[in-house]
Amino acid sequence: MSVVYTGVPRADPSVIDALAAFGVATVHEAQGRTGLLGPNLRPVYTGARIAGSAVTVSVAPCDNWMIHVAVEQCRAGDILVVAPTSYSDAGYFGELLACSLQARAVRGLIIDAGVRDVRDLRAMGFPVWSKAVHAEGTVKETLGSVNVPVVCGSRIVNPGDVVVADDDGVCIVPRSRAAEVAKASQAREDKEAKVRERLKAGELGLDIYGMRDKLAARGLVYKSAVDDA
Amino acid sequence: MSVVYTGVPRADPSVIDALAAFGVATVHEAQGRTGLLGPNLRPVYTGARIAGSAVTVSVAPCDNWMIHVAVEQCRAGDILVVAPTSYSDAGYFGELLACSLQARAVRGLIIDAGVRDVRDLRAMGFPVWSKAVHAEGTVKETLGSVNVPVVCGSRIVNPGDVVVADDDGVCIVPRSRAAEVAKASQAREDKEAKVRERLKAGELGLDIYGMRDKLAARGLVYKSAVDDA
Amino acid sequence: MSVVYTGVPRADPSVIDALAAFGVATVHEAQGRTGLLGPNLRPVYTGARIAGSAVTVSVAPCDNWMIHVAVEQCRAGDILVVAPTSYSDAGYFGELLACSLQARAVRGLIIDAGVRDVRDLRAMGFPVWSKAVHAEGTVKETLGSVNVPVVCGSRIVNPGDVVVADDDGVCIVPRSRAAEVAKASQAREDKEAKVRERLKAGELGLDIYGMRDKLAARGLVYKSAVDDA
Amino acid sequence: MSVVYTGVPRADPSVIDALAAFGVATVHEAQGRTGLLGPNLRPVYTGARIAGSAVTVSVAPCDNWMIHVAVEQCRAGDILVVAPTSYSDAGYFGELLACSLQARAVRGLIIDAGVRDVRDLRAMGFPVWSKAVHAEGTVKETLGSVNVPVVCGSRIVNPGDVVVADDDGVCIVPRSRAAEVAKASQAREDKEAKVRERLKAGELGLDIYGMRDKLAARGLVYKSAVDDA
Amino acid sequence: MSVVYTGVPRADPSVIDALAAFGVATVHEAQGRTGLLGPNLRPVYTGARIAGSAVTVSVAPCDNWMIHVAVEQCRAGDILVVAPTSYSDAGYFGELLACSLQARAVRGLIIDAGVRDVRDLRAMGFPVWSKAVHAEGTVKETLGSVNVPVVCGSRIVNPGDVVVADDDGVCIVPRSRAAEVAKASQAREDKEAKVRERLKAGELGLDIYGMRDKLAARGLVYKSAVDDA
Amino acid sequence: MSVVYTGVPRADPSVIDALAAFGVATVHEAQGRTGLLGPNLRPVYTGARIAGSAVTVSVAPCDNWMIHVAVEQCRAGDILVVAPTSYSDAGYFGELLACSLQARAVRGLIIDAGVRDVRDLRAMGFPVWSKAVHAEGTVKETLGSVNVPVVCGSRIVNPGDVVVADDDGVCIVPRSRAAEVAKASQAREDKEAKVRERLKAGELGLDIYGMRDKLAARGLVYKSAVDDA
Repeated sequence: MSVVYTGVPRADPSVIDALAAFGVATVHEAQGRTGLLGPNLRPVYTGARIAGSAVTVSVAPCDNWMIHVAVEQCRAGDILVVAPTSYSDAGYFGELLACSLQARAVRGLIIDAGVRDVRDLRAMGFPVWSKAVHAEGTVKETLGSVNVPVVCGSRIVNPGDVVVADDDGVCIVPRSRAAEVAKASQAREDKEAKVRERLKAGELGLDIYGMRDKLAARGLVYKSAVDDA
Repeated sequence: MSVVYTGVPRADPSVIDALAAFGVATVHEAQGRTGLLGPNLRPVYTGARIAGSAVTVSVAPCDNWMIHVAVEQCRAGDILVVAPTSYSDAGYFGELLACSLQARAVRGLIIDAGVRDVRDLRAMGFPVWSKAVHAEGTVKETLGSVNVPVVCGSRIVNPGDVVVADDDGVCIVPRSRAAEVAKASQAREDKEAKVRERLKAGELGLDIYGMRDKLAARGLVYKSAVDDA
Repeated sequence: MSVVYTGVPRADPSVIDALAAFGVATVHEAQGRTGLLGPNLRPVYTGARIAGSAVTVSVAPCDNWMIHVAVEQCRAGDILVVAPTSYSDAGYFGELLACSLQARAVRGLIIDAGVRDVRDLRAMGFPVWSKAVHAEGTVKETLGSVNVPVVCGSRIVNPGDVVVADDDGVCIVPRSRAAEVAKASQAREDKEAKVRERLKAGELGLDIYGMRDKLAARGLVYKSAVDDA
Repeated sequence: MSVVYTGVPRADPSVIDALAAFGVATVHEAQGRTGLLGPNLRPVYTGARIAGSAVTVSVAPCDNWMIHVAVEQCRAGDILVVAPTSYSDAGYFGELLACSLQARAVRGLIIDAGVRDVRDLRAMGFPVWSKAVHAEGTVKETLGSVNVPVVCGSRIVNPGDVVVADDDGVCIVPRSRAAEVAKASQAREDKEAKVRERLKAGELGLDIYGMRDKLAARGLVYKSAVDDA
Repeated sequence: MSVVYTGVPRADPSVIDALAAFGVATVHEAQGRTGLLGPNLRPVYTGARIAGSAVTVSVAPCDNWMIHVAVEQCRAGDILVVAPTSYSDAGYFGELLACSLQARAVRGLIIDAGVRDVRDLRAMGFPVWSKAVHAEGTVKETLGSVNVPVVCGSRIVNPGDVVVADDDGVCIVPRSRAAEVAKASQAREDKEAKVRERLKAGELGLDIYGMRDKLAARGLVYKSAVDDA
Repeated sequence: MSVVYTGVPRADPSVIDALAAFGVATVHEAQGRTGLLGPNLRPVYTGARIAGSAVTVSVAPCDNWMIHVAVEQCRAGDILVVAPTSYSDAGYFGELLACSLQARAVRGLIIDAGVRDVRDLRAMGFPVWSKAVHAEGTVKETLGSVNVPVVCGSRIVNPGDVVVADDDGVCIVPRSRAAEVAKASQAREDKEAKVRERLKAGELGLDIYGMRDKLAARGLVYKSAVDDA
């Protein structure tokens, strides 16, 4: 059955914005190394770092009809997450749909397929993470669903989850855990800030993390390359 | 038999320049979604948008001899299209050949293989769409042909066809259809300009394209996410 | 056995810097088309061109512990070369390790796996060539070795070899051949400079390289495309 | 949190066996072209056709500990479905685990990763669908979960769903729809049986399906190849 | 325009059968190493070796309607060659279409996409070379063409060309060259038969082909592994 | 420099035969999970299990000349290991070379490229592990080396190393460790035999390996699926 779920609850906007600032790698670590989408999803242009609430779209292969339906369900601060029900690298999305989303203050698109008009997307500042760039058009013949769980980048994305995306890829934070993950991210960043200063000053990770004993206990051996030759 | 066809007819230069301005996605749609080369052909640097007449080269695997032969057949406004007769990602083309082509006002290269010296190509402003960047050199031992039909990006390219290329990929327009496709592209662009304004103003594609009745007729259902949970 | 070789001899710094200036394609040709790593190793940002002495690291799959050990073995002017013992595209390396290496004046990283924090790496100007960008973290459980021969990009890299890397990829020059290859690179560049001027002036490679007779002898035929149609 | 769900309800065994007899292509069509796992999941040997209830396992990358935990949750007629939480083609499963599952009358394994001992698996008649064959071993260090929803072959598999697998791949039928899909599969097969007889007798699909008018209406043209040449 | 060309001329049946007996590798060599389709086209079951006249079909992505149209154009001894106009690995072909083709004495299928029902195809003895096995169904919505030139396995196939296929892949022989290539194949096989006997008797290729002088002239050196160590 | 090393020392034949009997997965584990070649190297037909001494060949891309040179260096019980110096999937090896090797009692071929005549190889019982099946021929123009270290399947293979190959892939055992690894393989097999009997009798790995406490200590939780729903 094809269904559009309306009124999906979103996470707290201030939490979402905090997650954006931490970025993908930190958020992924802070929530216990879960939620990372596969590395085939790449930004079509570099430099963007965003977070927002997932509006999910399940589309038929080579058919982008439901993206038009999904636009109406988007609010300011959302991110559209599109997944075809079988593999396709066609171009489901281009500049006109981006204009429509930008008019609603949607922050970006994650799509487990292809997009086109990337020159325009960059010029507009509408960031997209996709599996391919491909001008091949799609049709509008078959229904799908909006705001159902979808598989994107080999991982489940639920509507209302927080999407974090930057040059490292895309990470999904369940809505119910968003505040907790933001806090854990801050803790991680605080800890890393101290380590960073020591590393920049020339201290070694071996000493900061106290690794030398454990390495020796495991049997690590040092030899002179010159003597051994 | 290895043969070089000379004096291949080209399309009208003003039509070619018009096609360049429309770009790949529009031209591909305007000619009925045909002619698009496969998405593995990517620009070695972003931002270029060109069109020109195809001078085609069929080369032996790992052999770039015929590219030197093809240079002589190129005129101002042409685009070189190179395809090896079996799969290879070696670097058939680099900065010296680009200098030679640029001296003849050739506009760019499409190659179903690898290229090198990409740092120089970007600095020179000589755009290339290729399957790989690879410094691996090629030899000059085996003949091939110039200006015969070749398969590039899984599609046939005929000499004299119009090549359109930008960040979305590469599209081929048969010479005999170039004027007609340019006209259809303009019509498409005119239509899209009006839609764009309405979308930017916040109207929905659902309304602009009149999709709501068709969606309902197909059985699309709206439910509240909160009630359903 | 897990071992760290210390005191690996490096090539002459002035030779290393000369090789950096020539770049990958020239160096690869000048040493007889050997040493080029596979084209899957791509720069995470474009524009860098470096050379340095290889400090090699063999790591267990999804385990970056030995990178911390290797940092201590790095000197100013080195390049870290990391290879897991079986295929992995996880993110073994990020901004903190880059800070540590940059504090020691290490010039960059070559890794036959994934990296993360690429936004930071670009901002810091720490160049990396990798097979993937992936935020997926790694563990610190299993020993490996430092400064042993490793397979990276399908080719053997020995500690102390000179690594040359730019937008075309990565090339390895054995330490013992570094001076000779630098000289051969200069010779190649001198020769190319003369050819370049002639090409820019409009001369054809067919004439400069004297190819016409050989092509005719092999049986190359010229035909008019118009007559033939 | 790592959790093992016990006592997952299964579908009616007679329905499961009926689905096995129909095979993947028929079942996939009969449930409206849904549920098919991606084509990268291939049988390690050909000829098997099975169906069973999914016991799902979410494992850490390169870690097969939870498969041992999952064995205890398997009953006669089940099929184990294993998915790592990030991409891996290591060999998570071999002959010893197959012995253990076969002792419990488990019917086969679906794994979004690699397996080993395929010579033994074939000899034992324990069918496996996997993404790779790879002898690379895994560790037993990190917890995962059993009988939670997993993503396998880019699609969600829920515990207790019916898994159908044969040489065409793997298809998932939600437990609640199993009886209905079995009935629809039978209807499809009955219809196909009649068409098959007519096709074998030399009738054309064009006539059986009444396609000629629709083709003509769309503008299909017939021309003589000889006249046109 | 969508068109079906009828009455395509075929090659002499006795020549076609002779080519089948030689197999792909011999025919490919005998016609000057041309015509070989890409190695991604693999047999769905091993052991078949066939040749026949190509009936070509250009289909829309994920649409197999034109295959039904093409069946009518097939005669005894033909081979169907199907290529979608953009990349797709869906299952365009299954057992019912195979029944229909077998009723017309068609010898097999070459398809630059996916197929399903492979268990049945093997049982029926209807050989197929495809890019994938995938149960995903296709639609019947969009016209294509029959007996036009298509790109299959990255190479042009013309209607009426002779298709040769076995476990090594697929090779295309232009109809006009079929007799000549059959003769050259026989000559090659005769020559190889003599070499084969000498090799089986223990003579070395180095001596049979007289390679030793050429190798020495190029500078090949022999050293003792033991002395060198 | 191109060089052929002669008189490479081999391991003890009885040790080699013992390793063959254990197979790839056991040998790989027994030597500490090292030596496994990448999973892209697959058998061209299933069922063979061999071991032998590596005669290594480094060939130029698309050039099989040095394979002919290497044949002379092969003795009874050897296995030929061929690696091109850059990526290629052409067919470097076919039935005639197999006849020549079989006449010398060579046991098989491992090649990081393509092969052809696979129908004949299967009929002859000459097993091959390769990256591709491809009829595309190669040339005999460029020297390479025999019995030097090569990179095959992303791992270093030294001449005289023991090669073990079966349906699971290929594993390399350094000559100096062969006896020790054979002993460790036997110990592993003895231990597995006992476990196998207990598993077949229905005991669980959870109990045999004593995993329950460790799982509980890590926090594994069991819940009823029915209560939770």
